Amino acid sequence: MKFRRSGRLVDMTNYMLHHPHSLVPLTYFSEKYQSAKSSISEDLTIIKETFEQQGIGTLLTVAGAAGGVKFIPKVKLSEAKQFIDELCELMAKPERLLPGGYLYLTDMLGDPSIVNQIGRLFATVFSNRKIDVVMTVATKGIPLAYAVAGQLDVPVVYVRKDSKVTEGSTVSINYVSGSSKRIQTMLLAKRSLKEGSNVLIIDDFMKAGGTINGMISLLEEFDANVAGIGVLVETEGVEERLVDEYISLVKLTAVNMRERDIQVMPGTYFHNMKDNEIGED
Amino acid sequence: MKFRRSGRLVDMTNYMLHHPHSLVPLTYFSEKYQSAKSSISEDLTIIKETFEQQGIGTLLTVAGAAGGVKFIPKVKLSEAKQFIDELCELMAKPERLLPGGYLYLTDMLGDPSIVNQIGRLFATVFSNRKIDVVMTVATKGIPLAYAVAGQLDVPVVYVRKDSKVTEGSTVSINYVSGSSKRIQTMLLAKRSLKEGSNVLIIDDFMKAGGTINGMISLLEEFDANVAGIGVLVETEGVEERLVDEYISLVKLTAVNMRERDIQVMPGTYFHNMKDNEIGED
Repeated sequence: MKFRRSGRLVDMTNYMLHHPHSLVPLTYFSEKYQSAKSSISEDLTIIKETFEQQGIGTLLTVAGAAGGVKFIPKVKLSEAKQFIDELCELMAKPERLLPGGYLYLTDMLGDPSIVNQIGRLFATVFSNRKIDVVMTVATKGIPLAYAVAGQLDVPVVYVRKDSKVTEGSTVSINYVSGSSKRIQTMLLAKRSLKEGSNVLIIDDFMKAGGTINGMISLLEEFDANVAGIGVLVETEGVEERLVDEYISLVKLTAVNMRERDIQVMPGTYFHNMKDNEIGED
Repeated sequence: MKFRRSGRLVDMTNYMLHHPHSLVPLTYFSEKYQSAKSSISEDLTIIKETFEQQGIGTLLTVAGAAGGVKFIPKVKLSEAKQFIDELCELMAKPERLLPGGYLYLTDMLGDPSIVNQIGRLFATVFSNRKIDVVMTVATKGIPLAYAVAGQLDVPVVYVRKDSKVTEGSTVSINYVSGSSKRIQTMLLAKRSLKEGSNVLIIDDFMKAGGTINGMISLLEEFDANVAGIGVLVETEGVEERLVDEYISLVKLTAVNMRERDIQVMPGTYFHNMKDNEIGED
């Protein structure tokens, strides 16, 4: 099938968006569209310029026989700021308050467009790390983990607190929940993680960090490495933070039940700005 | 900012792909690119033709003052067939067999590209139903539900088997697990579902259908309607199927532990082909 440039641009944009962090040889496109490599290169230049200008991401060109082009999703700094401000505003609504000072976030985490945007932000900030797999803990972290993993083109594994017959043999550890100090168990299917994997840990909420510390201990059992830690919400005011290096999108600084007041501010996301060249603006 | 057609095509493709089933007024694009509506219409024609030709989906044009354009993701019949055949092949691998005749599917369900493709297939087959929300049950159905919901631009709610303090008050029901005949409980956060919602139920596995029947009973408590039922895997050979109308991608027809043999065939997906005009080929 012969394609005109306009059709190629539409189809190539779709293809690149669906294959982030994957090296696509130029021959793939030139054969698909029966077009010269020089035309494909020009198409890619247009796509790259538009992606960068619009804050979609960038295209990296890898030269040589094994070369090709790779789409790296990147959210612009200004867009990330605006989105995190919106998250803060959404989270601070008094009707979220539940007995005990807990927050109802099910609606936010149930919205695929919010979840996907969170995924894009984490994929941006961790884009230059070597990541083989994204790990989370059931249940609330799962949608976030898939959203990040989809943008990084890696699989997801999730830790459970109870064993399931459909997962085969598991490795389990005991850990101390940071805030309640209770001893709990978490487990991971033995065959779900290869030795030496570089693992990005993603979760929805971090209080003292007990659950994330549990995941780190579990990774040690698999001889796997922590490639990064990302949490949607961290809370402030915990005496002893068990996990030190992490990236949070928002920080819950105060919850006042009596006055029905929730204080939320941006998390550590922007602290890592320079390292990761999130945006040019 | 002034855009040339090539840049517009790239950016509009990205925008439409990220806003499925949403009506986008032409003025949104004409203002963003400072281009005449006639040029935008021409762009959209190119995008529509390419999307249809490549099996990405289609663009619907809604005329009039409140009009605009809507992207409907659709997988071509030939692509759906190929993907379901691949799923069958993947599932039939003898190393998936676990004690008790269970199958290990964690790797498949942990791969975002497989999960997203499953989402596209369900979004195709349910594209002409009125759907307000996708519902599933924790844990394995969650990634699938988000993948479908993302393509339909609706939120996800998920039922749990245990109550969580972060969900506020819940509605719970007892149901009989179809295969084990045990009485179980499932619950859903009270404020997660509006009365009268049209709900698409998505799950990973259906044996006798007890869990899905439980979800249907739960929906009655919310005065909500079942808009459709989609399962990744159904099993054959169950005496009494509790749920009648559903769409499955694959059907597990036999598991022979001694000979380590798994028999899998395509499910009911293609039975609904004509109703939904999945593809033109």
